[in-house]
Amino acid sequence: MITWNNLDTVKAYEALKGVAKVDLAKVMAGESGAARVKKYSVPMAEGMAYNYAAKQVDDDVLAALAALAEEMQLTEKFEALYNGEVINTGEKRMVLHHMTRGQLGNAVEADGGDKRAFYLNEQKKIAEFANKVHNGEITNAAGEKFTTVVQIGIGGSDLGPRAMYLALENWAKVNNTFKMEAKFISNVDPDDAAAVLAGVDVAHSIFVLVSKSGTTLETLTNESFVKDALKNAGLDASKHMIAVTSETSPLAKSADYLAAFFMDDYIGGRFSSTSGVGGAVLSLAFGPEVFAQFLDGAAAADKTATNKNIFENPALLDALIGVYERNVLGYQNTAVLPYSQALSRFPAHLQQLDMESNGKSVNRFGEPVNYVTGPVIFGEPGTNGQHSFYQLLHQGTDIIPLQFLGFKNSQMGTDVVIQGSTSQQKLCANVAAQIVAFACGKANDNRNKNFEGGRPSSIIIGEQLTPASLGALLSHFENKVMYQGFVWNINSFDQEGVQLGKVLAQKVLAHDTEGALSVYSDLLNI
Amino acid sequence: MITWNNLDTVKAYEALKGVAKVDLAKVMAGESGAARVKKYSVPMAEGMAYNYAAKQVDDDVLAALAALAEEMQLTEKFEALYNGEVINTGEKRMVLHHMTRGQLGNAVEADGGDKRAFYLNEQKKIAEFANKVHNGEITNAAGEKFTTVVQIGIGGSDLGPRAMYLALENWAKVNNTFKMEAKFISNVDPDDAAAVLAGVDVAHSIFVLVSKSGTTLETLTNESFVKDALKNAGLDASKHMIAVTSETSPLAKSADYLAAFFMDDYIGGRFSSTSGVGGAVLSLAFGPEVFAQFLDGAAAADKTATNKNIFENPALLDALIGVYERNVLGYQNTAVLPYSQALSRFPAHLQQLDMESNGKSVNRFGEPVNYVTGPVIFGEPGTNGQHSFYQLLHQGTDIIPLQFLGFKNSQMGTDVVIQGSTSQQKLCANVAAQIVAFACGKANDNRNKNFEGGRPSSIIIGEQLTPASLGALLSHFENKVMYQGFVWNINSFDQEGVQLGKVLAQKVLAHDTEGALSVYSDLLNI
Repeated sequence: MITWNNLDTVKAYEALKGVAKVDLAKVMAGESGAARVKKYSVPMAEGMAYNYAAKQVDDDVLAALAALAEEMQLTEKFEALYNGEVINTGEKRMVLHHMTRGQLGNAVEADGGDKRAFYLNEQKKIAEFANKVHNGEITNAAGEKFTTVVQIGIGGSDLGPRAMYLALENWAKVNNTFKMEAKFISNVDPDDAAAVLAGVDVAHSIFVLVSKSGTTLETLTNESFVKDALKNAGLDASKHMIAVTSETSPLAKSADYLAAFFMDDYIGGRFSSTSGVGGAVLSLAFGPEVFAQFLDGAAAADKTATNKNIFENPALLDALIGVYERNVLGYQNTAVLPYSQALSRFPAHLQQLDMESNGKSVNRFGEPVNYVTGPVIFGEPGTNGQHSFYQLLHQGTDIIPLQFLGFKNSQMGTDVVIQGSTSQQKLCANVAAQIVAFACGKANDNRNKNFEGGRPSSIIIGEQLTPASLGALLSHFENKVMYQGFVWNINSFDQEGVQLGKVLAQKVLAHDTEGALSVYSDLLNI
Repeated sequence: MITWNNLDTVKAYEALKGVAKVDLAKVMAGESGAARVKKYSVPMAEGMAYNYAAKQVDDDVLAALAALAEEMQLTEKFEALYNGEVINTGEKRMVLHHMTRGQLGNAVEADGGDKRAFYLNEQKKIAEFANKVHNGEITNAAGEKFTTVVQIGIGGSDLGPRAMYLALENWAKVNNTFKMEAKFISNVDPDDAAAVLAGVDVAHSIFVLVSKSGTTLETLTNESFVKDALKNAGLDASKHMIAVTSETSPLAKSADYLAAFFMDDYIGGRFSSTSGVGGAVLSLAFGPEVFAQFLDGAAAADKTATNKNIFENPALLDALIGVYERNVLGYQNTAVLPYSQALSRFPAHLQQLDMESNGKSVNRFGEPVNYVTGPVIFGEPGTNGQHSFYQLLHQGTDIIPLQFLGFKNSQMGTDVVIQGSTSQQKLCANVAAQIVAFACGKANDNRNKNFEGGRPSSIIIGEQLTPASLGALLSHFENKVMYQGFVWNINSFDQEGVQLGKVLAQKVLAHDTEGALSVYSDLLNI
């Protein structure tokens, strides 16, 4: 029997607050530090590891976090989620994105069928469609192969798929699985669509319209842009467009599309990269086999996320340490710092995933909570960030917890030796150095050159960024975010906070405004 | 006579803390809100305006901020800066980036010459070089025109120029001033250079190596990558590369470069977009006339930043309101939200500019300060952000001050009408709606759909994003950041916080490690 309680009503949370705080600079020094780096590591799927030695925890804090996990029944809640309980209490929906990529959990019946079979069938349809595009069975009207795929979507239909595409683009090129270039149109700013369309060969492009409801205004507006461009090129738009949507949307059975692939209300936008939302564009760009490897990696990480032992469950442990930093240590932000240029937009995806899921002030029953919830997430790739905002991370007046990502090997394998080391070695040396610099600091009598240390970080280390390890990384963070939502007792799956702005924007466009909104509308010439 | 005092020693700061706090949701409602939007606006250069109606201020707070500016001699400090006082106390350097773009201040003699003449001459040399590339006087060895320019640099040599290039790329295309496509290589990750080089036609590319010292390891490593690529293509690297560096750097007089353009120690990397660091790549990409317009816009904004009246000095007012939010209201972050896809990387530039300048814990004399300094800066373009992290901004447990940017007109002028409005109207309607939604909120008995409001924002409104308005925007934020540094009594012009990581990375590469660093090195296979 699961009970859903606010964090501040839980005994283990009171106990956690009473545990002595760790002096990170001290415990990370010398042999103690070396022992921590060896010990405080949890294996992850796909040969990766989550190393939390440089977090502000010790065995006592970890024991208190384990007790919190147990008292709050966190793995039981996760189990309930993937077995089809109505976890999205606000919208009264199940949360089933795990089913798009694996065998986790029991069969779930809904909408007159087995949901796992439904998702797998959509994936199969996408794979068949992509194969036909690649082998020339599906072509443009002139019988020529499509060379480019353009995704039209916003939010979860853009950030995740775009980040995944960029993460695998170079890997696919060197592994000879690169099929089609992908582009993305998202913003309602007309310059976004205009610029993308000016840069592609529309006659050889296939457009993927992604909107679950089929009513997202930005996306429908950009669809119209694309249709105009196709028409102006003398082309039949319906031969160049496919839809990824729900079966009940206006896009589902429309003759405007070459094909439609389905998702449903049980897959939230920010959790949809492993559904058709990511599946169509990634299968077209890299081939269905690459997308299948990505799903396998995600499924493997999902499996480790079910483990009741926090020391064998990296997503849960990562989540708990994050809660400790947020609610007990009082840190407001988390920086995500991938030492991989291919992950340049991965922080932007995590920013949505985390902030839209857990940026809430009421619990799952709609009652205000008396503690802070989701942090602000931001980040850029290292080493670039080192030459940018790391100054504040090292010497600013606030402490920002850090989440590093690093890989032993590059994706493309082209490298140069300068000053006795390869670029890849320099990249890895920098991330190792940063962890220690942040944790240990270095005293200097010149206070301007003094480093206090005590700035916590973790690192996920992998062999190489591949489709499988990318899938595992994505799943790790999805599961982390959901676990944190359970701790905060919030509904991580709705986004009521985006509604008011939409309503007011419609009023502006209808010239139905008064007060401040009316004057702003005038100033902006609307 | 200027005196440099810590913020917490200043009488006006004590007074400011005592001023009654503003109930933003209340004052922004109804006619009071309309009156605020009309009143709380300051003209900016290039026809823009800084509107701060939705900030948590009123006439009393503003009067206290004006008193703070006066007591702290902020405009006098700014004047001292641009007249060549040694403001960068840590490195004992003047701060002269304003001279790259205008006539602000007195003549400054250094390094055996007049600095203004020096910067203007370098700009002229760059313009002449760019014109020769464009008109075919300077070509590749086969006598063919260069079509692409690739900037090699990191931090300030990358983020600013890249953001400016992206901001003007489409504008230049529709205004027929687009000369060459630009690409950027920054990260020491070997996949960055490998991917960029695989995507350009090296035989028709000119590479701009940017490093003030000529010793930046990432940049020299990437130069080697580029030289290998040129050599592998059978080309003479010295006929494809130019350098932007200081006159004393090893790159300055090398036969390895077709030409070298100079900056100096008085121009910090994050303030260098208007020097040759931005000038070479932007002049090659868009022509020297466009770069000159950009400089003119920056110079015009610099001029408004000298005004002693805070209501006629948008950079100073913006700075003061930011300090009020940070030190009195206790907000830790600021989100920068441009409603313009062209400004997609402008927040990343501001993130460096602000966090590297003001993420400090000691004052300009090297003494610890007892108050918080620079905020965390993050942001993405709207409307994309609305479908991502705005949930937390609206309903999260922390308040995040917001800085919106919006333009009445798009850059490209291509648009579609859907549901009775253009995309540009929808874009502008959304930013107007967001400001009011954040400030006023909306009560709902369903607490999950309740909006507290009281979330402060400002907006800069311009006619169109052009070279001149972009220059003015850039300068606005540079001057804002410097003014905040004066209030916090810190040195905004050094970056000692990045040094420790560099030193430790060198130890890792030399296998001269122990303790935690040694184990991390092993885990990362270095």
